[in-house]
Amino acid sequence: MHFADRLLSAIESKSAPVVVGIDPLLERLPSEIQPKSSTASAAALAMETFGRGVIDAVAPHVPAVKVNSAFFEAAYEHGVGAYFRLIEYAHERGLLVIGDIKRGDIGSTAKLYARGHLATPAFDDVRVERMPDAVTLAGYLGQSAVQPFVDIARETGRGVYVLVRPSDPGADRVHEFGSPDAPFYGHMAALIDEWGSSPEWIGECELSCVGAVVAPKDERSTRALRGRMPRTPWLVPGYGAQGATGAACAACFLPGGTGALVNASRSVIYAYEDTSESQRGGERWQTYVGAAARRFADELRTVAAHC
Amino acid sequence: MHFADRLLSAIESKSAPVVVGIDPLLERLPSEIQPKSSTASAAALAMETFGRGVIDAVAPHVPAVKVNSAFFEAAYEHGVGAYFRLIEYAHERGLLVIGDIKRGDIGSTAKLYARGHLATPAFDDVRVERMPDAVTLAGYLGQSAVQPFVDIARETGRGVYVLVRPSDPGADRVHEFGSPDAPFYGHMAALIDEWGSSPEWIGECELSCVGAVVAPKDERSTRALRGRMPRTPWLVPGYGAQGATGAACAACFLPGGTGALVNASRSVIYAYEDTSESQRGGERWQTYVGAAARRFADELRTVAAHC
Repeated sequence: MHFADRLLSAIESKSAPVVVGIDPLLERLPSEIQPKSSTASAAALAMETFGRGVIDAVAPHVPAVKVNSAFFEAAYEHGVGAYFRLIEYAHERGLLVIGDIKRGDIGSTAKLYARGHLATPAFDDVRVERMPDAVTLAGYLGQSAVQPFVDIARETGRGVYVLVRPSDPGADRVHEFGSPDAPFYGHMAALIDEWGSSPEWIGECELSCVGAVVAPKDERSTRALRGRMPRTPWLVPGYGAQGATGAACAACFLPGGTGALVNASRSVIYAYEDTSESQRGGERWQTYVGAAARRFADELRTVAAHC
Repeated sequence: MHFADRLLSAIESKSAPVVVGIDPLLERLPSEIQPKSSTASAAALAMETFGRGVIDAVAPHVPAVKVNSAFFEAAYEHGVGAYFRLIEYAHERGLLVIGDIKRGDIGSTAKLYARGHLATPAFDDVRVERMPDAVTLAGYLGQSAVQPFVDIARETGRGVYVLVRPSDPGADRVHEFGSPDAPFYGHMAALIDEWGSSPEWIGECELSCVGAVVAPKDERSTRALRGRMPRTPWLVPGYGAQGATGAACAACFLPGGTGALVNASRSVIYAYEDTSESQRGGERWQTYVGAAARRFADELRTVAAHC
């Protein structure tokens, strides 16, 4: 089944176009799951325990999680193992999974990244459930860097999200290169539309398996980008801790409220930090994470319903 | 000691401004070190054995190796472990090591990539020798994505190489965006020069710890880029299997033959493929790799001497 159709079906099952990002920072984990020793393997285990807890808490409310590879790579191969085990666990809980890896390199190297991060494993000791349903990519090395992933995506019902416009204002000096009418990010958007628009990449829902990462900025420029990529599913960062409101995300949706999946990471997974441990009165940290995921889903459900 | 000074000293010790890239493809490994089973752990072990053999063979001739993370990530956490063990082994053999990771993400995520790939480990079970002396980065998310790496580089005598112009012609539609006089890659070059030009980033050799990845294309544009980044050490891909000759690399050097480190991967590490196993008459595959590394070093020594 095509990635965009699987995604649409998952979103409909929870009536919420949202994804929760799992970005575990050791120093912010609940005290009861802090690492037991100062080793990378203990750190990886703590992150995995936290990730499983987040998945359990958010699974009733959201269709998907996004696992951010960077946070796991900070514990080297131990963390990378935890990254893949969390993907498998999220699949067991019926969630779609986006691997947030932002890889990008020349074609011959991209083939290897695609093998390691999206392809069905060719090894006897690696289960297919460990592979995410989609990954994020950097598209700055052109089509040959993205194509190995797209080929796998099409064959296996998986997807890719290529970065167009990040949420970090620090990127503006790169992304707004060119003229206000023809900025660099608009060029990337046109390329991504082109890479994903061939009929063979399009699902029944008329969206492609080649998506884009697009942070909402001013409404006008977001709508212009949306018009430029009419068949591209969007992954939308920047909500919550990074400052964007649900209303600011509205311009990311297609008419009918489809075509976008809004991510929240810190504002959901660290929701227990708003209440001190003594105030929680024995309530588990996951209760707060689940409640934040539900509020997030409720907000974006309303936003999408008005698009 | 500053990265650029360490690099210059390493280059002088072998009189050769070259680095050998370790990109192990299972299907191209010598028959005697093919994996013993179809598991990811056996694949990782075979890549590690090959990498150690390459390091032994090239260490007398070259100052540095570049380990390409993509090829190891294709065997998941098993491969990632092998990647770090190879870095440690190359250090034991007295080589500088570049970790070819091309990471790039927003500042809050880049901090984690920097912890996992360049920083001195904060864990009791991870030796500092496992960390590379420099990493390659994608700079498309702006200064906030690069800064966490640069801060670590400066504190620890390590370095970064930010991608300006890749060797893959497939990237041209992105990199030549803009006008012929003001292309996107020129903008990246100007940013990188700016990010690395503060006196605190400059070593005694007057080069920065913020380097650039620049493939040689036509001589005129390469010289223009070199003029734009007068204090930036370059890592130069594209030689050998990718088509660039030593002469084409000449424009990458500063006057006096410093400032560039030319990489060859496939043309060195698979040099045994030019001679069939029966023709080799019992000679080890490493003999051919060592001879190719020596020829590569000899050629670039001559090129640099004429700059």
